[in-house]
Amino acid sequence: MSAGSDTIAILCGGGPLPYSVADAALRSGRNVFLMPIEGAADKARVAGYPHGWISLGQYGRIVRLAREAGARDVVFIGNLVRPSLKDLRFDWRALRALPRIYRAFRGGDDHLLKSIGRIFEGDGFRMLGAHEIAPEILAPAGDFGAFKPSARDVADAARGLAVIDAIGAFDIGQAVVVADNRVLAVEAAEGTDGMLERIAGLRRDGRIKSPEGVGVLVKAAKPSQDRRFDLPSIGPATIAAVSGAGLGGVAIRAGDVIVAEAAAMVAEADRAGLFVTGIAGRP
Amino acid sequence: MSAGSDTIAILCGGGPLPYSVADAALRSGRNVFLMPIEGAADKARVAGYPHGWISLGQYGRIVRLAREAGARDVVFIGNLVRPSLKDLRFDWRALRALPRIYRAFRGGDDHLLKSIGRIFEGDGFRMLGAHEIAPEILAPAGDFGAFKPSARDVADAARGLAVIDAIGAFDIGQAVVVADNRVLAVEAAEGTDGMLERIAGLRRDGRIKSPEGVGVLVKAAKPSQDRRFDLPSIGPATIAAVSGAGLGGVAIRAGDVIVAEAAAMVAEADRAGLFVTGIAGRP
Repeated sequence: MSAGSDTIAILCGGGPLPYSVADAALRSGRNVFLMPIEGAADKARVAGYPHGWISLGQYGRIVRLAREAGARDVVFIGNLVRPSLKDLRFDWRALRALPRIYRAFRGGDDHLLKSIGRIFEGDGFRMLGAHEIAPEILAPAGDFGAFKPSARDVADAARGLAVIDAIGAFDIGQAVVVADNRVLAVEAAEGTDGMLERIAGLRRDGRIKSPEGVGVLVKAAKPSQDRRFDLPSIGPATIAAVSGAGLGGVAIRAGDVIVAEAAAMVAEADRAGLFVTGIAGRP
Repeated sequence: MSAGSDTIAILCGGGPLPYSVADAALRSGRNVFLMPIEGAADKARVAGYPHGWISLGQYGRIVRLAREAGARDVVFIGNLVRPSLKDLRFDWRALRALPRIYRAFRGGDDHLLKSIGRIFEGDGFRMLGAHEIAPEILAPAGDFGAFKPSARDVADAARGLAVIDAIGAFDIGQAVVVADNRVLAVEAAEGTDGMLERIAGLRRDGRIKSPEGVGVLVKAAKPSQDRRFDLPSIGPATIAAVSGAGLGGVAIRAGDVIVAEAAAMVAEADRAGLFVTGIAGRP
């Protein structure tokens, strides 16, 4: 590769994470080239970095832009609604990879992302996880704000982590809600926000009887997960949704979960009276 | 017990199942005494049987009515929204059992029902499962209607059964939705209808991309489950909800799932073009 191979190409989905990662890479002395995804990435935030917009399916354009920027390392980071094959606008290079892309779509998100990672690697790129560029974005163990989990919360968190581990082999989701030893929700295609909205609705309808402030959102990476892709994340918006669902706080497995805008998240948790805690180690 | 101990006391929740079970018991030559639960059981249908209405929490009244009817065997069957401790109107006998009732509420549904069963047994009753009174209500192996699952549907059903088994130890739910090898939803507190409404909503919002007619509702008993209580059930309303969610059909584990109004369910499935299939054996 060229002399510019200290450049990292960052495929940017939605939310604030791509810019946290880009800034961390810049702080560590590397260059970045952002490839924001149309319809997902934030135009105003992208503008501050060298970048080239892409559409999903424009694999040839992605390869060309990354090579022109001198990047060998590629990172994908940010929110992305799982696309449909028929929504993709393929260019010629993508069409050549189509049988592999088609197989990638037959399964869960983790399978999809791993498969796409392999396609990039076949073209000489190195797929990195955002946490390899910016290890500081992974939440550590311990309590992050002013509030601490109760013994009941800690027990609920342990049960939640055990559930995530039990379903890990099935590439389902990375979050559950547990309240007073009862598993209220398991995340799948609806995502964490959808799951928390459901808890809020079930509570409004009288279908969840545990008192306000009882219950924990638990997040951890699937054990099967290729950690370069799609690590679970939390941020200020998560705290607002947890508060709306009437839960007591958030527990994550330390080292498994990316935090977006940590200071703002902790401020929001302190304001809402919620705990946010990192639990060390796998069981 | 008295000479009347061929009488079965049936605690009736909502839906059609209590009357299927009562009729099966009558056909087998036993007597029945229905104890319909206020707010859940169907007044018009109850009227055709000897009965006494009860409220949840009136444990003393339940014991008295069952003894007056000469019943030693007690069955609970039908739908019931999980009550809150504070919604229960306890009578004196219930208050005496309160510490045990309180512990019963700390956990999943299976734990709750098992614990309540033990309280009944402490008072000399025998808790039976509805399928012990009426084995014909358990769905057998094989295809139930005109439509057959495809090879992809059979693979999705196998994946769904494996997920239900993996989460069985956690007393979560008894149903999942799998489409083209991807687990779209895992049932917990929202129940099967809530889960299927979610699938319909995600499809409307473009969050589920699998084509109409791809995807299977999979139901099976939790492996941990005390089969006397809360076996999963399907019926005509399930088929309507599966159709509304744009799935291809329903797969259940044979011997694990109660069918309400089988003829009406099969007619509805045939009309909607959906398969309903029973899969033999545990993996």
